[in-house]
Amino acid sequence: MNAENSLKVDADRLWATIDRSAQIGRFRDTGLRRLAVSSEDKEMRDLFVAWVREDGCAVEVDAVGNIFARRPGSDPNLPPVAIGSHLDTQICGGRYDGVLGVMCGLEVIRTLNDRSIQTRRAIEVIVWTNEEGARFSPPLMGSLAFAHRLPLAQALDTKDDAGLRFGDELERIGYAGKAPLGNHPLDCYFELHIEQAPHLDREGCDIGIVVGGYKTLALRIDIRGETSHSGGTPMADRRNALVGAGYLIAGVNDIGLAYAAERGRTTSPRIECFPNLPGIIPEHVRLIVDFRHPDTAGFDRMHADIKQAIAAAEAKARVAIEVTEGWSWGTSLFAPECIELLKATAVELGIPYREMLSQAGHDAYAVAELAPSVMIFTPCRDGISHNTTEEIDRARTLPGANLLLNAALKRANRSS
Amino acid sequence: MNAENSLKVDADRLWATIDRSAQIGRFRDTGLRRLAVSSEDKEMRDLFVAWVREDGCAVEVDAVGNIFARRPGSDPNLPPVAIGSHLDTQICGGRYDGVLGVMCGLEVIRTLNDRSIQTRRAIEVIVWTNEEGARFSPPLMGSLAFAHRLPLAQALDTKDDAGLRFGDELERIGYAGKAPLGNHPLDCYFELHIEQAPHLDREGCDIGIVVGGYKTLALRIDIRGETSHSGGTPMADRRNALVGAGYLIAGVNDIGLAYAAERGRTTSPRIECFPNLPGIIPEHVRLIVDFRHPDTAGFDRMHADIKQAIAAAEAKARVAIEVTEGWSWGTSLFAPECIELLKATAVELGIPYREMLSQAGHDAYAVAELAPSVMIFTPCRDGISHNTTEEIDRARTLPGANLLLNAALKRANRSS
Repeated sequence: MNAENSLKVDADRLWATIDRSAQIGRFRDTGLRRLAVSSEDKEMRDLFVAWVREDGCAVEVDAVGNIFARRPGSDPNLPPVAIGSHLDTQICGGRYDGVLGVMCGLEVIRTLNDRSIQTRRAIEVIVWTNEEGARFSPPLMGSLAFAHRLPLAQALDTKDDAGLRFGDELERIGYAGKAPLGNHPLDCYFELHIEQAPHLDREGCDIGIVVGGYKTLALRIDIRGETSHSGGTPMADRRNALVGAGYLIAGVNDIGLAYAAERGRTTSPRIECFPNLPGIIPEHVRLIVDFRHPDTAGFDRMHADIKQAIAAAEAKARVAIEVTEGWSWGTSLFAPECIELLKATAVELGIPYREMLSQAGHDAYAVAELAPSVMIFTPCRDGISHNTTEEIDRARTLPGANLLLNAALKRANRSS
Repeated sequence: MNAENSLKVDADRLWATIDRSAQIGRFRDTGLRRLAVSSEDKEMRDLFVAWVREDGCAVEVDAVGNIFARRPGSDPNLPPVAIGSHLDTQICGGRYDGVLGVMCGLEVIRTLNDRSIQTRRAIEVIVWTNEEGARFSPPLMGSLAFAHRLPLAQALDTKDDAGLRFGDELERIGYAGKAPLGNHPLDCYFELHIEQAPHLDREGCDIGIVVGGYKTLALRIDIRGETSHSGGTPMADRRNALVGAGYLIAGVNDIGLAYAAERGRTTSPRIECFPNLPGIIPEHVRLIVDFRHPDTAGFDRMHADIKQAIAAAEAKARVAIEVTEGWSWGTSLFAPECIELLKATAVELGIPYREMLSQAGHDAYAVAELAPSVMIFTPCRDGISHNTTEEIDRARTLPGANLLLNAALKRANRSS
């Protein structure tokens, strides 16, 4: 293979699928609100399933709602080459996060169909359920359950802020599938995704081959104080849980700023406060904090600093703070054989690339525990994501789609 | 009158009313959750109305649900001497806050009935609606509407966090009354209340004659940032509204601590955050902050410092902050003639007292704009209030009740 005889996706057809998806759960003009297992999610899933059936795929749905669309290979005994991502979005999400990866997988199948190319191994496009965790926690729910890192019963019993149960909602939209969960070998797993950080966009490079992830940990922080009168209680007698949270949010952000030069990050995305009423000092706050760093040593230094910030907030606000570790992932995730395949294919196609780390969480992190996996990043404008103004340069996205197509084809046809 | 021939309330009967009230909306063993215009509030109101009717009072309810229980005087042309407080509580409230003042008013009427004492002016016990503001904002809703400082339509249209409308709930519990709102002259207004601060309790003094209030202002603070990915967004590109709130809560509390020696106070009791989900940087936080100081000059210095803290949080978190001034009250509230009456009566009864300022908001602040008003404070243990462990020493509460009784009687019978 060389640049001249390589396969290319049908760009117009690919963008038509993205634009059709952008109509389902449209929000604030340019964005999407398509929360996991919502009616919008059902509509998008139904459309995807109809498309892949027209394209000759067999469809399987597992007990957590993951969808597997299989284009058969010539050797039915070999596990499939998988390409996946997600169709759910954040509450103020964009049109590309997740969607682009699924539609590129679909486009790989359609391009192979156009050329009547029979592969040795099957090609499978996977839609993971609830990657975002915006409605039901944790994020990566579908892929974690697939990888046996999240018990099915726990996933099904998760409730959203309105008290609705994940399992009931999954039944309601018709995606509580019969396929056994995770008993599903994969030859390998590819995921194409917008970068969600500004590096490719700013450097003018169109492809990131993702060799690992930032080391990341989320903390659930329970801060306990005591209710009392917001007027009469002397400052020295107060135990305001929200004040404890304020000192901690400020301290955690200061740590993020201190580590910014080495690309450390800290985020406080969510707070719940009780009683949360005027006139009464709050007795309980639950805060989510996450932090990440490109290397383990830096991560460990940040973690120590965050523990100090927690102790400082506890003392200053006279509150009791309890920390529970939540989702996490490490730095060394992806298979050298898949990384090398992408690099070699990019060279053959004559497409410049850079190696990089992912700063966000992805389903590929969970799948990587079961099968050799790798990710391809494509640029997004200014690195903006989880925002309705998320945007891409379509011309700069096609090299990634073509790399995915050619690498998946090679892997599917390899003899060993 | 002297200490020997002064009237005394029936202590056992008074405590029986408090104990009966403590069964309606009981919460966490020793406390109350009796939110305004809830079913528990209805049950307490119905009981109060039944009691005062048995005691020979005429009952009127106005359009915002305030209840007026009138013991007629010999001269029906004179406006009544009023004694009032509230029967609603905080969400984690105590048994005495508000309730004590209403039940002492009831006990005044019952004591006069015991002795068949006919007063020249009527005595009226008033139950103000929604003093706490715990379910429907603002606090002091009933008394502010009575004083024409809050339009009735606005009060009726207020919604709670569940979206229920105040006016509908008032209808539901049967207290949307027919009496015209506020067209109701009062000769004067007395309110007895637990102090909700620890000074009387710690100093061993049983009576505070309230000569004014801390100057107080509540601020509604809208903090606007921008959603983006909690992993990929570089620290320098972030506009996290919750981080803005964190810096501000910390800064506002630091100001409270700096003014603690001169009895300044700052409180952050309530926060709302959107989207408030893991993985996405918040774009909007609405924070309530209140602050108070015993004198106007100190209040003004605090206000200037808080404005600086807002500007600092705005700059550090790269957010936009908008401030709306909410409820407020000043320092000079109460009528010298009423203060002098209480002081003179206390001397006659041989009860030690101290003059003090109120640190909390009270219905008396609103009523004081219409009629000469004053408050009596009684001790509460460690100053704890808005907490289910709120407690009083009953023996140390009786002097206040007897002062109320004798002062109200004098005022009702005065000739001029």
